[in-house]
Amino acid sequence: MYSFEKVRDFTNEVFLKIGCSATDAELATKVLVSADLRGIDSHGVARLIGYIRLWEADRINPTPNVRLVHETPSTGVVDGDAGLGLVVAPKAMDIVIDKAKNVGSGWISIKNSNHYGIAGYHAMMALEHDMVGMSMTNASPLVSPTFSTERMLGTNPIAVAIPADKQPPFVADFATTTAANGKLEILQRKSEEAPSGWIQDKEGQSSTDPHELKEGGALLPLGGDRDHGSHKGFCLGSIVDIFSGVFSGANYGPWVPPFVSFLPMPEDPVGEGIGHFLGAMRIDGFRPATEFKSNMDTWIERFRNAQSTKGMPNVVIPGDPERNFEKERLANGIPLNEKVIDDLQEVGKKFGLSF
Amino acid sequence: MYSFEKVRDFTNEVFLKIGCSATDAELATKVLVSADLRGIDSHGVARLIGYIRLWEADRINPTPNVRLVHETPSTGVVDGDAGLGLVVAPKAMDIVIDKAKNVGSGWISIKNSNHYGIAGYHAMMALEHDMVGMSMTNASPLVSPTFSTERMLGTNPIAVAIPADKQPPFVADFATTTAANGKLEILQRKSEEAPSGWIQDKEGQSSTDPHELKEGGALLPLGGDRDHGSHKGFCLGSIVDIFSGVFSGANYGPWVPPFVSFLPMPEDPVGEGIGHFLGAMRIDGFRPATEFKSNMDTWIERFRNAQSTKGMPNVVIPGDPERNFEKERLANGIPLNEKVIDDLQEVGKKFGLSF
Repeated sequence: MYSFEKVRDFTNEVFLKIGCSATDAELATKVLVSADLRGIDSHGVARLIGYIRLWEADRINPTPNVRLVHETPSTGVVDGDAGLGLVVAPKAMDIVIDKAKNVGSGWISIKNSNHYGIAGYHAMMALEHDMVGMSMTNASPLVSPTFSTERMLGTNPIAVAIPADKQPPFVADFATTTAANGKLEILQRKSEEAPSGWIQDKEGQSSTDPHELKEGGALLPLGGDRDHGSHKGFCLGSIVDIFSGVFSGANYGPWVPPFVSFLPMPEDPVGEGIGHFLGAMRIDGFRPATEFKSNMDTWIERFRNAQSTKGMPNVVIPGDPERNFEKERLANGIPLNEKVIDDLQEVGKKFGLSF
Repeated sequence: MYSFEKVRDFTNEVFLKIGCSATDAELATKVLVSADLRGIDSHGVARLIGYIRLWEADRINPTPNVRLVHETPSTGVVDGDAGLGLVVAPKAMDIVIDKAKNVGSGWISIKNSNHYGIAGYHAMMALEHDMVGMSMTNASPLVSPTFSTERMLGTNPIAVAIPADKQPPFVADFATTTAANGKLEILQRKSEEAPSGWIQDKEGQSSTDPHELKEGGALLPLGGDRDHGSHKGFCLGSIVDIFSGVFSGANYGPWVPPFVSFLPMPEDPVGEGIGHFLGAMRIDGFRPATEFKSNMDTWIERFRNAQSTKGMPNVVIPGDPERNFEKERLANGIPLNEKVIDDLQEVGKKFGLSF
């Protein structure tokens, strides 16, 4: 178990060492470590070595000039200048929030960026402004559309954060696949089988082997197969891809660059870097904020108290599990597995830092 | 097989008979019959008798004053004045499109409405303006959240329409459940079993009996069960409910009024009528329209030509099946089953019209 402060300070030092400004290093750290706090271990410091390797491969610009390149009062495109998505996305979200302050809502599509951490962080930035926040991103292709054997989409997550009054906010943050890649990695480490509907082999047949992705297999869209609505998961992943990539001029579909530096960049890019899409709507752009928030309290309380199936827990309000993790880990520390500790020590060695 | 013109003209006459203005009757007809043309038989004239019974029960106002009651330059709330959703939603979408013309995007939440036909119709209104259109609605509670036996959400569909250039537009339109209620009704008529993951019985146990809903069972969120991501389907249905109901001041969750007139209205409403949420974004609010549309062509062509799984068809681009239905049914007519024909004849009898 590592204290939050230790993990945070080490990460901050590393981002400084690759040349980030003090402000950017602090921001990137805050976004990255929020994943560890919120229990989304696959997207926290476990990925730090991946970002560093991308920087070593000259695929990340540590001093990006993040700027609006096209806009209307409520929409626009931000060029991330090949920066860390951990820095580009929250800066773009500041613009989104400004637009929403001015005209009720703001919608920014981002090109020329990199992996942006957990989708939920950026959506949640809207909450303190009494806005609903939205965040989505395309990602390296790992997912096959229904009926196909090709990897055409990333796990393309969607996050939506909605403020309440006495209740904590509603925060949904989920991959548009049956299971996120992080869950598969856990099964791989434990050598356990995956449930049906998570993955297919390279021939497009359903598989329960969590190592299938290394053999040419693919993750499956939410739903798993056609009978169970995988075409809907494919629609969702596609919408995220188009809003993030086609709106902005980033790469999309199978052209999205890989996160791992040992895989080559696509040879015939259709855009620049990876893409995100961020939005915010002022709740008082619809009705008085107090009315909205009081109704959200009613919504949350009613759903939390819905009759449970015998032997099952209460209905889980989106955001509750992550909030519980955050409370517990701030108090007791962050568990890191051996592989992650090794990776962090390797990163430390590169820069003369100890972990 | 009934010609499109016959079905359309009869429907139009019926809406005139309940007191709709000529303009409103034509609009309601266009929206309703678009479902029959596009192959979504559950949402077309099969529902006409349902709307008429709601009108007989004084739950539908045939001459509504559909109006904006709150707004910012890009957002607002429309009061549907208890009108047909078939009329309220396209009128609200006109406001959405005007806002998008002015400030890049428009977002309207609607209260005090009724069933609005297929979600896709309203989203597709944006296409001719070179905008991306979005449409969602809450609906009578039929769906249980993960871990619950209570019906708390409707099938809460989401539609997104995205223009392309040489390719036809991308039009996704799907319920946020594993299977839409219409598919279950088909199995009921044929007395066939449903796949697992579509429904649960009143105890919350998975069932394959398509009649389970009449016995206190429920539809399941997209994903089916927790292992297969039903919490994500629950998130999606919840977001649709909150955007449609809580933003606008309509009812939400288990309080959404039933579509069938023989079920009583909820006694303790939390809002007015049912709610919708509509949006549009100008594609040139992000980048030049020609660039966007040419990239959408590339996106669609690349996905349509993705390697198929052996023995399977090509990847289905959202909107293709409905477009094929439309072409075929405009030419050859609309198939109606006996139950629907009986219902239409019963409606005709009420108003001295023959079908």
